[in-house]
Amino acid sequence: MIHAQRMIESHPSPAPVDAAMLAECVEACFDCARTCTACADACLGEQHPNHLARCTRLDLDCADLCGATGRILSRQTAFEPETARAVLLACARACRACGDECEQHARDMSMEHCRLCAEVCRRCEAACNNLLSAMGS
Amino acid sequence: MIHAQRMIESHPSPAPVDAAMLAECVEACFDCARTCTACADACLGEQHPNHLARCTRLDLDCADLCGATGRILSRQTAFEPETARAVLLACARACRACGDECEQHARDMSMEHCRLCAEVCRRCEAACNNLLSAMGS
Amino acid sequence: MIHAQRMIESHPSPAPVDAAMLAECVEACFDCARTCTACADACLGEQHPNHLARCTRLDLDCADLCGATGRILSRQTAFEPETARAVLLACARACRACGDECEQHARDMSMEHCRLCAEVCRRCEAACNNLLSAMGS
Amino acid sequence: MIHAQRMIESHPSPAPVDAAMLAECVEACFDCARTCTACADACLGEQHPNHLARCTRLDLDCADLCGATGRILSRQTAFEPETARAVLLACARACRACGDECEQHARDMSMEHCRLCAEVCRRCEAACNNLLSAMGS
Repeated sequence: MIHAQRMIESHPSPAPVDAAMLAECVEACFDCARTCTACADACLGEQHPNHLARCTRLDLDCADLCGATGRILSRQTAFEPETARAVLLACARACRACGDECEQHARDMSMEHCRLCAEVCRRCEAACNNLLSAMGS
Repeated sequence: MIHAQRMIESHPSPAPVDAAMLAECVEACFDCARTCTACADACLGEQHPNHLARCTRLDLDCADLCGATGRILSRQTAFEPETARAVLLACARACRACGDECEQHARDMSMEHCRLCAEVCRRCEAACNNLLSAMGS
Repeated sequence: MIHAQRMIESHPSPAPVDAAMLAECVEACFDCARTCTACADACLGEQHPNHLARCTRLDLDCADLCGATGRILSRQTAFEPETARAVLLACARACRACGDECEQHARDMSMEHCRLCAEVCRRCEAACNNLLSAMGS
Repeated sequence: MIHAQRMIESHPSPAPVDAAMLAECVEACFDCARTCTACADACLGEQHPNHLARCTRLDLDCADLCGATGRILSRQTAFEPETARAVLLACARACRACGDECEQHARDMSMEHCRLCAEVCRRCEAACNNLLSAMGS
């Protein structure tokens, strides 16, 4: 794997915020998009997917938003702090909603895919919030 | 074309907000994702793409965010108003930034693709703001 | 709505294939991505989503592939016929699988969202195949 | 990071192909989507982006296709071998085109972001081809 930080440091423009923190957030977004996509599909494959309809929906929203956020934060040319802040706020919120829901199914139904997904959502939510703090919003 | 409103009305759950307004926003998001993707590529193909680097970047951000917003708003199962609001705010902001930039190139360099793109961004920004108002935020 | 053809014609590079046919395919892809996203969510909200698990999965695949295909075909700078052909073949196949599945639920369970989605998938499959023929593959 | 293989193994349906090989391909697709997005933006930020227009375009295509492929391969419910094969072929082709172009800029212009991106494209192309072989196409 080529770490996001190496891409950030090879860019002709300097990182708009701390490179390590930015890299952590970009990687967390892509990992969360991947994990939420898999969790949505695992929920759909369970015997009673109607009990997991809310979880599936939040997984799909979270995957879409993390995907867009990861791409937007991967761009350093003409960085726009206001858009970055707004998308980080939205992403952190989607991760929180999805993480809360998954955590509940991990606890109540011992769903391992939800337990793993909750963990990834928490990490991504924290990475978004760290970046927001670093950007001074 | 199957209008978004027909999909909204055939869903087993009722529309979480006014169906016509929601449909207008979903369609505006997908049109904006499509138009911004094309405008980014047109900028890249111009003789001096370095003058259009900021425009290209804002086009790509706007396409990503409109794509995610259009998908999230297309879901009515277990609708989450807080996530919807946050993503609409982010999308409206990305559309504004991109619309402003494109408008400038339409005016100063008579770029037709930027003129068309600015028009689509304005419509999408307005549709997001209308939906935000209807949702009472 | 700004039609795709106007964007194609305002691009500094000429259309790599017939502009009307290309525009039809780009619009069909974005409409299909939007409609399949909505159909997946409608399936999920039905009383017995387990009967619709396959349909949901094919909807999501189709939405992802149509989204990628619509973006790739929106680019005219340094157009790559080989990649375009491969992605059109994959997109036509995903549309066929999803259209077949949706058609069956429209017939057997009178699901209106599946009926509408099947119609959009058929149109997108045809648009992809038309473009493939025009490209001489 | 939660490895893709743990998500695959916690899914209610068995992996449709060798789990380790599938996980490798899913991770390679998401890493390639992330790296190509960053490389496109780095190209755009260079002093002479017109020399890199083809590279930028291939990066964007590759990012879109890897993103869609990574999502489709993350789904095990009602797995469709024909769609998987078609999308893997398209993804391998996009990775090859992008890897070739990036390699050239790494060599001729010592562009570090292109060198890193070529490496990721090669790995993703190989992972797609390995999976195609394992699927018996």
